[in-house]
Amino acid sequence: MGEHVTGPQVDPPAMLFDLDGTLIDSVYQHVLAWQEALTAVGIDLSVWKLHRRIGMSGGLFVTALLRETGGALSPDQIRALNLAHTEAYARRRDTVRPLPGARELLAALTERQVKWAIATSGLAIAARPALDMLDLPADTPLVTRDQVRHAKPDPDLFLAAAERIGADIGSAIVVGDSIWDLLAARRARALGVGLLAGGYGREELERAGAYRVYADPADLLTHLDEVGVRGIADWTTAPDTER
Amino acid sequence: MGEHVTGPQVDPPAMLFDLDGTLIDSVYQHVLAWQEALTAVGIDLSVWKLHRRIGMSGGLFVTALLRETGGALSPDQIRALNLAHTEAYARRRDTVRPLPGARELLAALTERQVKWAIATSGLAIAARPALDMLDLPADTPLVTRDQVRHAKPDPDLFLAAAERIGADIGSAIVVGDSIWDLLAARRARALGVGLLAGGYGREELERAGAYRVYADPADLLTHLDEVGVRGIADWTTAPDTER
Repeated sequence: MGEHVTGPQVDPPAMLFDLDGTLIDSVYQHVLAWQEALTAVGIDLSVWKLHRRIGMSGGLFVTALLRETGGALSPDQIRALNLAHTEAYARRRDTVRPLPGARELLAALTERQVKWAIATSGLAIAARPALDMLDLPADTPLVTRDQVRHAKPDPDLFLAAAERIGADIGSAIVVGDSIWDLLAARRARALGVGLLAGGYGREELERAGAYRVYADPADLLTHLDEVGVRGIADWTTAPDTER
Repeated sequence: MGEHVTGPQVDPPAMLFDLDGTLIDSVYQHVLAWQEALTAVGIDLSVWKLHRRIGMSGGLFVTALLRETGGALSPDQIRALNLAHTEAYARRRDTVRPLPGARELLAALTERQVKWAIATSGLAIAARPALDMLDLPADTPLVTRDQVRHAKPDPDLFLAAAERIGADIGSAIVVGDSIWDLLAARRARALGVGLLAGGYGREELERAGAYRVYADPADLLTHLDEVGVRGIADWTTAPDTER
C-alpha cells in the first residue's frame, strides 16, 4: 500500500520528576513541619501560605515569608530555621507514603527505555530516604538542592537533571505538583505537566503553564500517550503494523 | 438640591461564617488527623484527597472516601473512625491559631450592628473551644453538626444559622473556605464568598459559585463594602451627606 513516509526519528521525551507531592505524599507533612519551625522562632503565618510556597528554594521560601511578616533573620537564624524544619519533618516521615502509581510509572518508563530523573528543591539528606520508599536503587539519577546554585523556580535543577541522563531539555517533560515546578519548566524550555497530588488546584497549575494536569502518578501512567510516551509496542513495531 | 430619592429600606446582609479554614487556621491539622485515623483502620488515601473533602459532612466524607477505596465500613467502624479523628485533631489543637483578622472582622460586624453567626460541619465538642480562641462569648450564635439533620453541602447549617439570628437567608452572605460551603450557600439561596485560607485555589472557589474570593478574614474586612456592608458612618448618615 504505497511507501511508508518517515520523518526524522523522534525519541520519546525524557521525563524529569519533582519529588515531594509528585512521587511521594509528603507535602502536608512539610507544611506543618514549616509551621512548627517558624512558630518556634516567633513567626506566625497562615498555614495555606506555607503550602503555596512549598517546593520553591528554601532561601526564596524564607525570603518570601519574611516579606509577608516584614521581619528579618540573620544567616545564622535562617540556617537554624532550615535545621528545625528538617527535624520537624523527620518526626513526621513515618506517615509519608509513595503516591499511587509512582513506583509503577517509573518502572513503566524504565521498561519502555524512556530516560527519567528526579530533581528536587530538597536536600540530599531528605531526598535519599525517598528512593528506598519508591523501591529505587541508590544510583537513580537524582539532583538535589545541594548540587545546584539555585533551586526552583530557577531552571537549574531540571537542566542539571537532563544533563545527568543525557537528555535534551527542550524536548523533556517536567512533572511537578507546584507552580514552582511549572515556572522552572518554562524557564528551562521544557514542557510542564502538573499533578494535583500536592494540593494545588487544577487551574492554578494550568495558569502556571501546565500543558496537561493529572491527579497523581497513577493517572499520568494511564495517560502517558497524551504527553508523548507511546506504548513500547507502538514505537518498536508501528511502521510494520501499517503495512 | 432636589428631593432625595429613597427606595425600600435595605438592611445590611447578615453574614454566616464557616469555622475551620475560615475563622481559625485548622484545616491542615484536620487533614493530617484524618490521615492518622484512616491509616489506623487500614485505609490509605492520598492526603490531598482528604484536604478536598474537609468541611463536608462527616458521613458524606467517609462515604466519599470509601467510594475511592472500594471498601466498606460498618456503622460501628464509622463511629470509631470519627472518634479517632477527634482525638488525633485534639492532639494537634495547640498549633491552631485564629486566622488573621478573624477577631477584628467579627468585632467590626458587631459594632456595625450586622447580624452574624457561625455554622460548622464540626461537632460542638470540637467547635466550642474555638470560641475562646476567637475571644467570643459562650452565647455566640453557633450552629454545629449535632444540631441539624444534614451537614454541608446540604443547606441545613446555614438555614439554621440564619433562623437563629432572625436573618433573611436570601439576602445573607455565607463566608467559607471550601467548595462545600459554597455549594451549601447556593442551595440555601445565599450569596457565597470564598476565602483562600483553607488551601483551595481561587478558581476552584469561583467555579463552586463564589461571588467574591478573598485571602482571609483580614482581606475580607478591608473589602467589606464590596459585599454590601458599608461603614457604619455610611449607612447612618448617608442621606444627610448628600444634601
